Amino acid sequence: MNTLDSLKQLLTDVQNGTVDVEQGMDHLRDFPYMDIGHTKIDLHRTFRNGFPEVIYGAGKTPEQVGDIFLRMKDQSNVLATRVSPEMAEHVLSIVPGVEYNQMGKTLTFIQEPIEYRDGSVAIVTAGTSDLDVAEEARVTCEMLGSRSFVLSDVGVAGIHRLLDHLDEIREANVIIVVAGMEGALASVIGGLVSQPIVAVPTSVGYGAAFSGLSALLGMLTSCASGVTVVNIDNGFGAACAACKINNLVAR
Amino acid sequence: MNTLDSLKQLLTDVQNGTVDVEQGMDHLRDFPYMDIGHTKIDLHRTFRNGFPEVIYGAGKTPEQVGDIFLRMKDQSNVLATRVSPEMAEHVLSIVPGVEYNQMGKTLTFIQEPIEYRDGSVAIVTAGTSDLDVAEEARVTCEMLGSRSFVLSDVGVAGIHRLLDHLDEIREANVIIVVAGMEGALASVIGGLVSQPIVAVPTSVGYGAAFSGLSALLGMLTSCASGVTVVNIDNGFGAACAACKINNLVAR
Amino acid sequence: MNTLDSLKQLLTDVQNGTVDVEQGMDHLRDFPYMDIGHTKIDLHRTFRNGFPEVIYGAGKTPEQVGDIFLRMKDQSNVLATRVSPEMAEHVLSIVPGVEYNQMGKTLTFIQEPIEYRDGSVAIVTAGTSDLDVAEEARVTCEMLGSRSFVLSDVGVAGIHRLLDHLDEIREANVIIVVAGMEGALASVIGGLVSQPIVAVPTSVGYGAAFSGLSALLGMLTSCASGVTVVNIDNGFGAACAACKINNLVAR
Amino acid sequence: MNTLDSLKQLLTDVQNGTVDVEQGMDHLRDFPYMDIGHTKIDLHRTFRNGFPEVIYGAGKTPEQVGDIFLRMKDQSNVLATRVSPEMAEHVLSIVPGVEYNQMGKTLTFIQEPIEYRDGSVAIVTAGTSDLDVAEEARVTCEMLGSRSFVLSDVGVAGIHRLLDHLDEIREANVIIVVAGMEGALASVIGGLVSQPIVAVPTSVGYGAAFSGLSALLGMLTSCASGVTVVNIDNGFGAACAACKINNLVAR
Amino acid sequence: MNTLDSLKQLLTDVQNGTVDVEQGMDHLRDFPYMDIGHTKIDLHRTFRNGFPEVIYGAGKTPEQVGDIFLRMKDQSNVLATRVSPEMAEHVLSIVPGVEYNQMGKTLTFIQEPIEYRDGSVAIVTAGTSDLDVAEEARVTCEMLGSRSFVLSDVGVAGIHRLLDHLDEIREANVIIVVAGMEGALASVIGGLVSQPIVAVPTSVGYGAAFSGLSALLGMLTSCASGVTVVNIDNGFGAACAACKINNLVAR
Amino acid sequence: MNTLDSLKQLLTDVQNGTVDVEQGMDHLRDFPYMDIGHTKIDLHRTFRNGFPEVIYGAGKTPEQVGDIFLRMKDQSNVLATRVSPEMAEHVLSIVPGVEYNQMGKTLTFIQEPIEYRDGSVAIVTAGTSDLDVAEEARVTCEMLGSRSFVLSDVGVAGIHRLLDHLDEIREANVIIVVAGMEGALASVIGGLVSQPIVAVPTSVGYGAAFSGLSALLGMLTSCASGVTVVNIDNGFGAACAACKINNLVAR
Amino acid sequence: MNTLDSLKQLLTDVQNGTVDVEQGMDHLRDFPYMDIGHTKIDLHRTFRNGFPEVIYGAGKTPEQVGDIFLRMKDQSNVLATRVSPEMAEHVLSIVPGVEYNQMGKTLTFIQEPIEYRDGSVAIVTAGTSDLDVAEEARVTCEMLGSRSFVLSDVGVAGIHRLLDHLDEIREANVIIVVAGMEGALASVIGGLVSQPIVAVPTSVGYGAAFSGLSALLGMLTSCASGVTVVNIDNGFGAACAACKINNLVAR
Amino acid sequence: MNTLDSLKQLLTDVQNGTVDVEQGMDHLRDFPYMDIGHTKIDLHRTFRNGFPEVIYGAGKTPEQVGDIFLRMKDQSNVLATRVSPEMAEHVLSIVPGVEYNQMGKTLTFIQEPIEYRDGSVAIVTAGTSDLDVAEEARVTCEMLGSRSFVLSDVGVAGIHRLLDHLDEIREANVIIVVAGMEGALASVIGGLVSQPIVAVPTSVGYGAAFSGLSALLGMLTSCASGVTVVNIDNGFGAACAACKINNLVAR
Repeated sequence: MNTLDSLKQLLTDVQNGTVDVEQGMDHLRDFPYMDIGHTKIDLHRTFRNGFPEVIYGAGKTPEQVGDIFLRMKDQSNVLATRVSPEMAEHVLSIVPGVEYNQMGKTLTFIQEPIEYRDGSVAIVTAGTSDLDVAEEARVTCEMLGSRSFVLSDVGVAGIHRLLDHLDEIREANVIIVVAGMEGALASVIGGLVSQPIVAVPTSVGYGAAFSGLSALLGMLTSCASGVTVVNIDNGFGAACAACKINNLVAR
Repeated sequence: MNTLDSLKQLLTDVQNGTVDVEQGMDHLRDFPYMDIGHTKIDLHRTFRNGFPEVIYGAGKTPEQVGDIFLRMKDQSNVLATRVSPEMAEHVLSIVPGVEYNQMGKTLTFIQEPIEYRDGSVAIVTAGTSDLDVAEEARVTCEMLGSRSFVLSDVGVAGIHRLLDHLDEIREANVIIVVAGMEGALASVIGGLVSQPIVAVPTSVGYGAAFSGLSALLGMLTSCASGVTVVNIDNGFGAACAACKINNLVAR
Repeated sequence: MNTLDSLKQLLTDVQNGTVDVEQGMDHLRDFPYMDIGHTKIDLHRTFRNGFPEVIYGAGKTPEQVGDIFLRMKDQSNVLATRVSPEMAEHVLSIVPGVEYNQMGKTLTFIQEPIEYRDGSVAIVTAGTSDLDVAEEARVTCEMLGSRSFVLSDVGVAGIHRLLDHLDEIREANVIIVVAGMEGALASVIGGLVSQPIVAVPTSVGYGAAFSGLSALLGMLTSCASGVTVVNIDNGFGAACAACKINNLVAR
Repeated sequence: MNTLDSLKQLLTDVQNGTVDVEQGMDHLRDFPYMDIGHTKIDLHRTFRNGFPEVIYGAGKTPEQVGDIFLRMKDQSNVLATRVSPEMAEHVLSIVPGVEYNQMGKTLTFIQEPIEYRDGSVAIVTAGTSDLDVAEEARVTCEMLGSRSFVLSDVGVAGIHRLLDHLDEIREANVIIVVAGMEGALASVIGGLVSQPIVAVPTSVGYGAAFSGLSALLGMLTSCASGVTVVNIDNGFGAACAACKINNLVAR
Repeated sequence: MNTLDSLKQLLTDVQNGTVDVEQGMDHLRDFPYMDIGHTKIDLHRTFRNGFPEVIYGAGKTPEQVGDIFLRMKDQSNVLATRVSPEMAEHVLSIVPGVEYNQMGKTLTFIQEPIEYRDGSVAIVTAGTSDLDVAEEARVTCEMLGSRSFVLSDVGVAGIHRLLDHLDEIREANVIIVVAGMEGALASVIGGLVSQPIVAVPTSVGYGAAFSGLSALLGMLTSCASGVTVVNIDNGFGAACAACKINNLVAR
Repeated sequence: MNTLDSLKQLLTDVQNGTVDVEQGMDHLRDFPYMDIGHTKIDLHRTFRNGFPEVIYGAGKTPEQVGDIFLRMKDQSNVLATRVSPEMAEHVLSIVPGVEYNQMGKTLTFIQEPIEYRDGSVAIVTAGTSDLDVAEEARVTCEMLGSRSFVLSDVGVAGIHRLLDHLDEIREANVIIVVAGMEGALASVIGGLVSQPIVAVPTSVGYGAAFSGLSALLGMLTSCASGVTVVNIDNGFGAACAACKINNLVAR
Repeated sequence: MNTLDSLKQLLTDVQNGTVDVEQGMDHLRDFPYMDIGHTKIDLHRTFRNGFPEVIYGAGKTPEQVGDIFLRMKDQSNVLATRVSPEMAEHVLSIVPGVEYNQMGKTLTFIQEPIEYRDGSVAIVTAGTSDLDVAEEARVTCEMLGSRSFVLSDVGVAGIHRLLDHLDEIREANVIIVVAGMEGALASVIGGLVSQPIVAVPTSVGYGAAFSGLSALLGMLTSCASGVTVVNIDNGFGAACAACKINNLVAR
Repeated sequence: MNTLDSLKQLLTDVQNGTVDVEQGMDHLRDFPYMDIGHTKIDLHRTFRNGFPEVIYGAGKTPEQVGDIFLRMKDQSNVLATRVSPEMAEHVLSIVPGVEYNQMGKTLTFIQEPIEYRDGSVAIVTAGTSDLDVAEEARVTCEMLGSRSFVLSDVGVAGIHRLLDHLDEIREANVIIVVAGMEGALASVIGGLVSQPIVAVPTSVGYGAAFSGLSALLGMLTSCASGVTVVNIDNGFGAACAACKINNLVAR
């Protein structure tokens, strides 16, 4: 049962008299967040944002991530991103049923089946080296309830590879474009389709790519109107935005 | 009659026999773009992107913008952005019926009534100084067929001004957040609503604001998931993205 | 006995005749600094700055830090920051009674009880990943004689977590805000309280966070007036500033 | 009568029955902010921040600033910063009694005498060219109720000029250091006094000074502990911070 | 008669005895450069570089440029770039026969007919706003003896405009791509043709375009191999490189 | 047999009837690219670009590179760049006949003899530390069919070393200049020869060299006209450009 | 009589009894600096630095500069740099005998003849556009008592122009190299002479020259050892350093 | 016997007839540089620059450095900088008599006694962490024939430590100031002494120190005139400049 549902149930129980006010207050104490010392897990986020809080692994200790997982897993499906193999190993050892995606560096725990909404998100990458960012986006879309598919290695140096898949891309509601180096793919797709495009610059490249700065600036200054941009390598953020958009269609 | 409609009409006329193939070819010659020497006006853009080409005034001479206006005005409603007062004066003198918006620096020519789709776009600014960017976004939304409203001066230094208008904001399908300085407004709104947010950093501020860089980086690294970002002061681009999203709902 | 007291004692002893001038000169020779070859320990700093010199571990060899500890420990309580585990191990092995704080990366040696002054410093962090910087600040406050408390993970993505603790925060004399990514927390708190705020940008984040640059610029350009900023990850410096301010109240 | 007092009076009047609830509501309608279309004047700020809202002139039109002045002047003393001569001329022409400070680029309107609290703020500049920033700080201190004095042109290239005034500086509660170029003055004073120091980098200099970036970085990385920094040329912000600190002593 | 020819003639004259050694030395005295005080005109450059020295107008006074023109015009055809209208006016007033190109900001003086070599240079621009840089390149190509043609406004936001002209582009020996904003056109053309491409980033754009930095980085990190880059807005340099390449074919 | 030849053969076979249309379609299915899941190998690139696709090793897993090698090796000679020793070890273990160049970090597989065209490319380095970039360029030239030679350690600090080899350099059709630190070698050679110069900034240096930025900017702003630049450490890209130029001469 | 001499005279007068201690104190009151309100003129600087204080005009008002001139002109020869024409006009109108150098933007007042020491400073520029910076250096050298000569337009694009003047350059004690764009001249001269070189990057150039950053980085990372660097366009600073070095030889 | 002497000897031998022209040519063949494949050792540098070529270890393989050492050691004393422990180990194993300085990361081989000239170089550091850069400078001074002494840990946070050693510093001919963080020490010393100052920014510090950028900018924009700057951490370069200056005095 997810956060939203369990909160509704509580209120119904109080209404029905099966739970009295004092008891209700005890249950509600943890709302809207659960304080576990180092972290205040934001349980209300589903109300406000449409999605539960997601664990950002980087900069946390394996123990901290493990703690958060233990607490969140009874409330909702759980997603953690930027999870190193060591961190994953620790969490897997204490929370049975968690799954680690090595390429996307995500941990997922699915306690109740995901209800997918209509429509899909296309995740398009310029090169093979962008696949880990695309994978983070793909897993996030899934956990947030949007179907998605990855189309990789269609960068502009061989533009016919892209043109061949245009129909497929145009069937999605939203398009995530993942590209490093000069990030030109976002502009080219932006000129060819009418859907919203969320561009993710990646740190693929060297020298004047400046760890993704080049792609970031390129996407921000795209001559194709209506391209919006997220942080370098932020597959997760792109997926959140894409799912928020996809949710609009179905609501 | 807009580009899309006039093209459909042409094909129908050919089908009906009211226009023969040779005549049809003559009409089609200008498709998918019209070459007027210095510029190739992209008439097909409505097909591909959902919107007609928009004139970007900066870096063009008043004469060039005037030329483009003259050619485009018979095909569709026309929008030009980043139009200086001198440029506006020239265009107004040669194309009757054009309107200049001094704050938003836009020129608009409306030859047939705009058909608004359902839903609206909220344009929220941190300060009074961000209003010119917001105005560019507002005019663009209107020309692209989405209703919008501007809510100004609700920056985080006085957060109750924002909280008071939250209900209003939540009624929109998409939210454009316009903020300079540190751009924190995007993060705060991002944590309070479930809609897609398009953030526009502005060049408001001085010193370490570095002409909008500070707000740009802040919005890109927002701790609120799902915020996407466009170029500094790019009210036009934000509106394009917002309208593409709003179009999804209604289609 | 701290530096200040031992100097006063010396002068009293000379006045009393229990120490003659020549002997006094011998004791004073090391004042105002003690030259141990590679380093000139600044013993006068308590007079001038209100605090004894603190050892900055980074860039020194374990042996150098050990030497300085050995010399300083008879004069005052000692604090070292940015101490790696290897460095700590060496110092612990040669100076009994030293304590290592792994999260804050500090070494402390307390030879006489700390006399706390009235009032306290609130240390507020945006996320769990900012805790190591907060811990450096906390230990520093303690060593400099100000009580402090840490309130973690109240970032603006879930602003109710912050609002819930506002009363607690408002009881402190000074507030240290520790935040990475876009650092918006400083602006939001700055708009809600009347105390001085010292903001510490952290290197938490990736991509366009540029190792703390994004948070640094955001805090410097905060729309909330009266926020002052220290270097990225500089929990120590923030605590020094906060304690100087707290000292003012009590003097 | 300032904002705070007029609010208290209102509540007392309601309590006394001299104002009935409906009338009270009418008065309160504008609280906590007054919406004048383009701007939402934050009247509650005195409660939360200890100071009334201050008008930031840059990026506003003279007309907008004039509007805000007209509305605010009945509620409290008013301060506007970054006011160009043209803007000043307009406001002076519509609001009698306003004063323009050309060096500090401030407009002030004083409707009731400032009540100064004890203690003072020292404003120390490295060179004559830093005086406009110092002046903005001085006027702000005055409007916020702290006495201050300016000590100019004591930069480190002639350090005896500084040493000569050290006693004077040490009598203040807080020290604002205003310096461009390499900004070394903050470090040198920081090593010589025990008070809190708020450093303001200025855009004085050329070439590698990069419009104040050099001084900003230098102050942020000062080897003197406890120096905090505000934005480049932000005399206003430094004064706000200094007054918040000075307020602590007297409360 | 150009520099090279006049030098050959001199040597032949000496060989023939029509000029004796002393006289020859007098003529040669100005070789390999002519010292006119503020400037040392490099007359040997044709030998070494294949082209005569070109006058870079920026940062020189109109008088200095006038002086250089007067001296060079007897030796060879003359080209000056980055010539402001004021500078042009001065030179036109003292050197009859000079021509000013306002868009390209060039001054040219043609004393003997240009001998064009075979082959041509294609100059392709992304937008109308890039035309001034393209024009500088076009004039330079002409003066250096390569035919060229400009194809403007074929940016990637409407990629069919480019594809339509691909055959035309493929007929050139070298392709100069002129683009601002994200500069993606270089990558797209780079993936479609086999000729050498010289990319010129332009300062067209705003905000994160950072005066051409975005296009510069994008072109340097192009995923299309074999694209080389010159300085921002450097139409002249691109033309020099293109002509050096074109010269290779014909030699 | 290379890609181009095998395609021609196929069409001839169909013309001759030795292959029927259905069979021909089967062979053509993989054209113009071969989809192997993570990667779409661009087999058409030889047509469009004059060179086959080259494998960029960085950011790919050893397994991905191995896969691509296995598929490409039957179609053409194969080149991979930026290959780490671990990656090389894996590919060598599964594809016999591949050669690893440790200095240039390239893998090459030569199935049919390289047909060199006339003319050569000079690769000139400023220092010994630039040799790995030069080696990448040298191997690439060879694989693309241009002869080349490396002239190392002739930096401007000892300019006679360069002047001594000027004749040798002038015999090449194109010159690649490889230099780190301030990259002045490109300007000096640019002033001494008439050939096209492709400059490669390297990351050699420290501090203000900023990993090659200093050399990059220096080469872009070279006072010698006609120098074009590729990305930092991009020996491969420089060689591609040089070979495209060299191909022009011989075609 | 200069500062140093007048101070010596005073002490001699006191020793001789022609001035009594009280009178002496009156004279000394202004030492070591003269406080004229906005500015503290540093009269001791000759003792400490070898040179009197120099007026930095930028950021001061014409009136402030005029004041300082009036006070300093009785004590020593006076030099002001970065003086705009308006500022010069004001000072010339109130201080007879002052001279304005328009190219170097300096004001000089010579009340007693300059005593030149032996040896000279060579000021070498890459281009004609660097002449204003060279002129500032030349005037400064003169005022500080070192002879100098300017050798202009010998940049590396035509290196024979430099080689021709090498003997002349080698006769100086110190060499100031003034160059913009990539600043390669410093490295080339650095490799050819044994004297100390002070390099001045200039803001000559555009695009990737980034207002002198490119030349600055190039000079800092020069492969020629022993080149030291001053700020962009800082002809004054280079001359100070050169004169300090030249003074060493003669003392 | 050093390079210069051995060259003189050779010419004398030829003059005397003890070496005939053919034999002389054989000896001279290696002049002015010795080509050992990967490297061209510049033997003429002593003539031109006053110092022999110094080996820059970074980016070379241990084998390359070993080769160069073997060749140079018979011609002159040898110095290598930026030598890693592994590199040192290799060279020590093949060239007996070489000495490795771990702190300064230098290798030295002294085959004939160093002849020191008069005068000395003061090397002053801000902190203990700057000592490795100071040590590189110290060893370099020694090898180039100037005496030097290191005065460490006298940074401006405790300025009395500096003032105490001022007499000592003033006895040197040249002063090298080594400082990280904000690098203010250069300005303060620059205001107190009349000697030439060569400032070395170091990478000591974190966050906004940006690996030495902060100190670099601070030193370049120093308000103390006559401070010149070398690259970050470039103790070697500072020593070269200082020795060139010191050489001037003694010649």
